[in-house]
Amino acid sequence: MNTHGYRVAVVGATGAVGQQMIKTLESRDFPIDKLTLLSSARSAGKKVTYKGEEITVQEAKPEIFDDIDIALFSAGGSVSKELAPEAAKRGAVCIDNTSAFRMDPDVPLVVPEVNEEEIRNHNGIIANPNCSTIQMVAALEPVRKKFGLDKVIVSTYQAVSGAGAAAIDELHSQSQAILDGREAKAEVLPVKSGKKHHQIAFNAIPQIDNFEENGYTFEEMKMINETKKIMAMPELKVAATCVRLPIVTGHSESVYFEIKDENVTAEDIKTLLKDAPGIILQDSPEEQLYPMPADAVGSNDVFVGRIRKDLDDRRSFHMWVVSDNLLKGAAWNSVQIAESLIKLNLITRK
Amino acid sequence: MNTHGYRVAVVGATGAVGQQMIKTLESRDFPIDKLTLLSSARSAGKKVTYKGEEITVQEAKPEIFDDIDIALFSAGGSVSKELAPEAAKRGAVCIDNTSAFRMDPDVPLVVPEVNEEEIRNHNGIIANPNCSTIQMVAALEPVRKKFGLDKVIVSTYQAVSGAGAAAIDELHSQSQAILDGREAKAEVLPVKSGKKHHQIAFNAIPQIDNFEENGYTFEEMKMINETKKIMAMPELKVAATCVRLPIVTGHSESVYFEIKDENVTAEDIKTLLKDAPGIILQDSPEEQLYPMPADAVGSNDVFVGRIRKDLDDRRSFHMWVVSDNLLKGAAWNSVQIAESLIKLNLITRK
Repeated sequence: MNTHGYRVAVVGATGAVGQQMIKTLESRDFPIDKLTLLSSARSAGKKVTYKGEEITVQEAKPEIFDDIDIALFSAGGSVSKELAPEAAKRGAVCIDNTSAFRMDPDVPLVVPEVNEEEIRNHNGIIANPNCSTIQMVAALEPVRKKFGLDKVIVSTYQAVSGAGAAAIDELHSQSQAILDGREAKAEVLPVKSGKKHHQIAFNAIPQIDNFEENGYTFEEMKMINETKKIMAMPELKVAATCVRLPIVTGHSESVYFEIKDENVTAEDIKTLLKDAPGIILQDSPEEQLYPMPADAVGSNDVFVGRIRKDLDDRRSFHMWVVSDNLLKGAAWNSVQIAESLIKLNLITRK
Repeated sequence: MNTHGYRVAVVGATGAVGQQMIKTLESRDFPIDKLTLLSSARSAGKKVTYKGEEITVQEAKPEIFDDIDIALFSAGGSVSKELAPEAAKRGAVCIDNTSAFRMDPDVPLVVPEVNEEEIRNHNGIIANPNCSTIQMVAALEPVRKKFGLDKVIVSTYQAVSGAGAAAIDELHSQSQAILDGREAKAEVLPVKSGKKHHQIAFNAIPQIDNFEENGYTFEEMKMINETKKIMAMPELKVAATCVRLPIVTGHSESVYFEIKDENVTAEDIKTLLKDAPGIILQDSPEEQLYPMPADAVGSNDVFVGRIRKDLDDRRSFHMWVVSDNLLKGAAWNSVQIAESLIKLNLITRK
């Protein structure tokens, strides 16, 4: 291991996102002196391989963070709420992938391509946005910067891995049951703790997370509120409809947006996004080239295509945005924030 | 059989929609004296059961329509273009489920809940709209009538059965291949005659039908143009993004719409749609009740839910619309037009 590296902890090391965090730290060759893998008591004792070395997962406890420089949290909101402040108090910088602190005014909510400089304002905790928000703002930010942005309406096409490993198993077992002509048992989606569960195989469920009183789901409100915070545009009009689909990994989004300049063409938007950081333009209708989740899996990038001008409103456009929800939507964005901490000289080994 | 009935032909009797047309004629107890089942030469000779009686499918030829009162076409645009004018010349009223005549100014484009009276203007051919258009206009028409309508933005979640029986087989065989860890072969979707084919199982394909030069697909332009024609609103702003998903039957739509009255509430829209013809309101977030394709299969109705007011624009709303694309989207709407012909006294036995 790198002897000039950091002591890094992954909290939630055995989960779907935690596993991707470990893989991403490895593939990025992140400067690590010591990697500590943490989990609930239930998963403690499991072994995970990192760079050929077996690491035993330990139960997450406050004292452990005495010896940690950077802690990546992805073990659910309640774990973050309890442990991230403890870790921060002990001098670790926490990058939290849950919704626990995202809307806290003292916590930066960061997508490095959009608001990397916000990291400077951290008080021990930096929040990683919701997966469906990250890929959308990454694609919208170059547009906002160059042409202004007034309004966004998004409809999502979200994969089950966003709901964890149990939801992936459920999609697989339900799909097999239906192909065999058996009944599909639903126990996980749309919300594990919910009163009702619905079949996801060969179906579409227009509910992600619980409902708020205003009729929107928490997932939809996350997209609305987080987008405004990340882009520092409280006045931006944002609306979202979030839908779970029988796709394992890779979120897609049908995004309508209104800019300030009515003379911009679809070609202008394509030219802009072709060179935007973290974005891959896949937009050749004549070659049937457009982003699809099956192609995006395993990539850190955000794929954009189907860019076209609205036929009625000269300031409006449509686009299709796809990304691996476990990578740019979660693990990679978290590790990317950690890399930004180093790049901006905001972290030192304790 | 009813001795005071009509001589009815189904053209494309062995296809996915044709089969549903025959079932629907049976379940509606449509007044039929003689049912003639027609197809291409390739499928001629097959036998189909109607009300316990075996009927042999014949090759479709112009002369056959000499003895037909009502002809339901669903055998592809080229068959309709060739045979529907021949059938009409011979006195049959053709109800055409293809896109061949939909935008012809001399051909009514009808969704009975919206513009039944248009049937009176037929010249031997009445067009059945595109499946994704029908369910949307059925849900929007009561809104337009009561509160006015300015703008519609729709993102679709479309089932593979809209692309025919071969696409259903492809989804099933690809799903099994992927569950078995084998490679998924793609030969049908998104467009059978297209240069490239993409995996649909556990994926999302943002292409339905071919692309036009403006970057929109024909499916998207159908939704845009047909909606304006059916609602008789050439000035209506409509935009669409159409996406194929790993669902066998049942199209879903995330519909954003702007009305003229800013004092309308989501409750007002719900109250209105609860009693609208052909609409079933499924909108109780607290009970996790909303429309889903798996629940809509086999029903003639259009299911609407997730109705909520936009948080920024007082004249804007969001809703989620689901229907069986083979029934209200095709077979049922065609048979319903035939029933309207009888109801309005527009058809007589030759």
